[in-house]
Amino acid sequence: MVSAPSVSSSITARLKVRARPTAVSELTAAIEIAGGIVTALDVQSSGREQMTVDVTCDTRGEEHAAAIVAAMEVLPGIVVERVSDRTFLAHLGGKLSIEAKVPLRNRDDLSMIYTPGVARICEAIAARPDDARRLTIKRNTIAVVTDGTAVLGLGNIGPLAALPVMEGKAVLFKRFADIDAFPIALDTTDVDQIVETVCNIAPVFAGINLEDISAPRCFEVERRLRSRLDIPVFHDDQHGTAIVVVAALTNALKVVGKEIGAVRIVLSGAGAAGTAVLRLLLAAGARDVVVADIDGIVRPDRPGLPDSLRWTAEHTDARGLSGPIAGALKGADVFIGVSAPDVITGEDVATMAPDAIVFALANPRPEVDADEAARYATVVGTGRSDWANQINNVLAFPGVFRGLLDAQSRTVNDEMLLAAAYALASTVKDDELNPAYIVPSVFHPDVTSVVAAAVANAARQAHWG
Amino acid sequence: MVSAPSVSSSITARLKVRARPTAVSELTAAIEIAGGIVTALDVQSSGREQMTVDVTCDTRGEEHAAAIVAAMEVLPGIVVERVSDRTFLAHLGGKLSIEAKVPLRNRDDLSMIYTPGVARICEAIAARPDDARRLTIKRNTIAVVTDGTAVLGLGNIGPLAALPVMEGKAVLFKRFADIDAFPIALDTTDVDQIVETVCNIAPVFAGINLEDISAPRCFEVERRLRSRLDIPVFHDDQHGTAIVVVAALTNALKVVGKEIGAVRIVLSGAGAAGTAVLRLLLAAGARDVVVADIDGIVRPDRPGLPDSLRWTAEHTDARGLSGPIAGALKGADVFIGVSAPDVITGEDVATMAPDAIVFALANPRPEVDADEAARYATVVGTGRSDWANQINNVLAFPGVFRGLLDAQSRTVNDEMLLAAAYALASTVKDDELNPAYIVPSVFHPDVTSVVAAAVANAARQAHWG
Repeated sequence: MVSAPSVSSSITARLKVRARPTAVSELTAAIEIAGGIVTALDVQSSGREQMTVDVTCDTRGEEHAAAIVAAMEVLPGIVVERVSDRTFLAHLGGKLSIEAKVPLRNRDDLSMIYTPGVARICEAIAARPDDARRLTIKRNTIAVVTDGTAVLGLGNIGPLAALPVMEGKAVLFKRFADIDAFPIALDTTDVDQIVETVCNIAPVFAGINLEDISAPRCFEVERRLRSRLDIPVFHDDQHGTAIVVVAALTNALKVVGKEIGAVRIVLSGAGAAGTAVLRLLLAAGARDVVVADIDGIVRPDRPGLPDSLRWTAEHTDARGLSGPIAGALKGADVFIGVSAPDVITGEDVATMAPDAIVFALANPRPEVDADEAARYATVVGTGRSDWANQINNVLAFPGVFRGLLDAQSRTVNDEMLLAAAYALASTVKDDELNPAYIVPSVFHPDVTSVVAAAVANAARQAHWG
Repeated sequence: MVSAPSVSSSITARLKVRARPTAVSELTAAIEIAGGIVTALDVQSSGREQMTVDVTCDTRGEEHAAAIVAAMEVLPGIVVERVSDRTFLAHLGGKLSIEAKVPLRNRDDLSMIYTPGVARICEAIAARPDDARRLTIKRNTIAVVTDGTAVLGLGNIGPLAALPVMEGKAVLFKRFADIDAFPIALDTTDVDQIVETVCNIAPVFAGINLEDISAPRCFEVERRLRSRLDIPVFHDDQHGTAIVVVAALTNALKVVGKEIGAVRIVLSGAGAAGTAVLRLLLAAGARDVVVADIDGIVRPDRPGLPDSLRWTAEHTDARGLSGPIAGALKGADVFIGVSAPDVITGEDVATMAPDAIVFALANPRPEVDADEAARYATVVGTGRSDWANQINNVLAFPGVFRGLLDAQSRTVNDEMLLAAAYALASTVKDDELNPAYIVPSVFHPDVTSVVAAAVANAARQAHWG
């Protein structure tokens, strides 16, 4: 899998171009020879001797962009005035704004939305606190909370540097589920401090989405917040991943005609995502799972097994195997990777059972090259957008929270997660299902509402039986 | 001062009206006789026998509204289907929303505003943390923080019930200063917890507006947050009030031709607002101030004087007086009330010096009836919107924070507060100044920009000399 030029590393260069008949074609040819993809060319102004041209192209990254700019600069009659990075431009001032939903044109408006009119709303909520969900933004607002310790593939970059991801998450919540989401980046990594802080800021929120908090602290944070708060707390890196994996597996098993209770599953990764995936697989009926992490297959008797892996060890079956994960793949039906790049090879996949299913979700570089895996497995999925079957949390968290908010749920539990997974799977109709289409596109218009309805239903059952 | 029907207690009643020639005039007459003011009448639908009519009217409050509805119900041929309270309607689902500033239409957008493109923005901020102010919402976002212990005239109603006021504050920040403000209502009143929580959530914010936190805890909270954070922390109940009072006094003294260093000032109230008002008056050059609270005139030797009043006692001159505040008014030039209703009377104002200035800011019922005070004082101001010279914090906090954000100030100090006060005063031109116009309307289009420019200037001087 070669890294292709991408809009995520797109630049726009403003050039002064001496007016010659072949100026533009030389320019675009030079960019293409350097490996860039021209996506736009705009003549901003033109005179008899010279033109001002904005040319936009996708690149493979910062170094490649610099090489492309250098290639333009050496062309005769071309002066590069400035280069703008489209991704950076999109981020100037951040990606969110807080808007007023009510007009404020005159004193009448002021006296309704502020003093003295607002006092009656305060009194109403003081008398009936549940009315806060009706009369304030608590009705539709969640917090996206991180401590910046496990951000994307960058690791522990701290709260400030994590903000762009949290803002992006909030954009996704609004765009896909019409949820108001505010980014909270915590300036502490202490579990007690995180728990106290989130509890203290909880009143305005109807839900908490934990994000990019490293394992194993994330388990304790979520557990303690769930026990303290009367609003749902959901760590997307855990449960969003689990939901999309179970949804994708449900459909993949349909494609190959196998049952979840009858297949052997090999799971690479025992951290936040791996633990949650295992848990939901078992809730969905899986019976034969073996897990491996960077230290090899997880077994109760593995020397130095940390406490955080004890539950995993006790709920999986190593079948006598130990050591590297490759050994566990022999004859296995399903491989699920939520770990790191290049953990297994195409040859390892070749040892799996016929009609194998491989989900290699480490992003951007998966556990195994997808092209290689596809030589041997029947269904292959990754987390990447440039491969079929993109198994991406974006398919889950908007609908999950939409459902939780609509049901005014105080909690989130495994029944709701499973309901979300099955609902997500159901958005791919039987006559649409094939090895290259086991999950819908993130832009599929029905995903959020179908998932939300299922989650809300499960939530209402959980509260009122 | 009689409480008049107000839009803040406006109702809309949907009526079925039997079609008779005088039906509508009887309806409006009945409402007027009951003391309501009809502000709108809309026929929603009409048939041969009956009409559906929505009638909107201002009332004096909930009991009055009920009486008006009863008056409508007894009219022949009228059936009241339902009654909606306009203020409650305006608050359904809260008054704010969080919107995306970037489009999210397709995969290209997704890869720029989320993975993988967003990772480069995170890396940039990790390398240069100051870039967070350029590349995230930190550029323009503040928190409005309360613990719900001193909300309007309602007192300690808790965080949930305080939310409508915090949301209203955020609407004002957006409308008047184009600032993104998020309401944080804390589920704790412990000073240590408040300080730790605000410090922990600070990364995404460029400023903290403390609101409705009771004295004396608010002093310690603000002091400790200012020492810990590198963003400005501003308790509006303290400093917003102080700014508008000094601005109003500056102009009132111009009207009566007196100097601030030469006048005797009597200040009623020694809590959050009173302490801050005193402090800024002294910074503005006042030399002769006496303060009284509910226990009488504040003097160093007053028995049982709390620590929170020690600074006040040491920086004011009781001139040998003690006991109730009325005694201090004799011969005084200025009375400023930031305390409670009915603290002094018109007769007390009559004992003041000629050309007296009276600011009675307790809201909604001032320290003295304004009509009464106006019989004896030359310049009278209150916090109310139905009286001339509305001395209201809305004139200060938007411009103050706009200036702090524009200058990317890390702090806020007395120089910036004074600069704000003088700038606010300057928005009333000399040829506009008269006893009934010493502060601009809150909707005056120049207030925010003039105040912001002055504060930004003072902030830049503070940081770079």
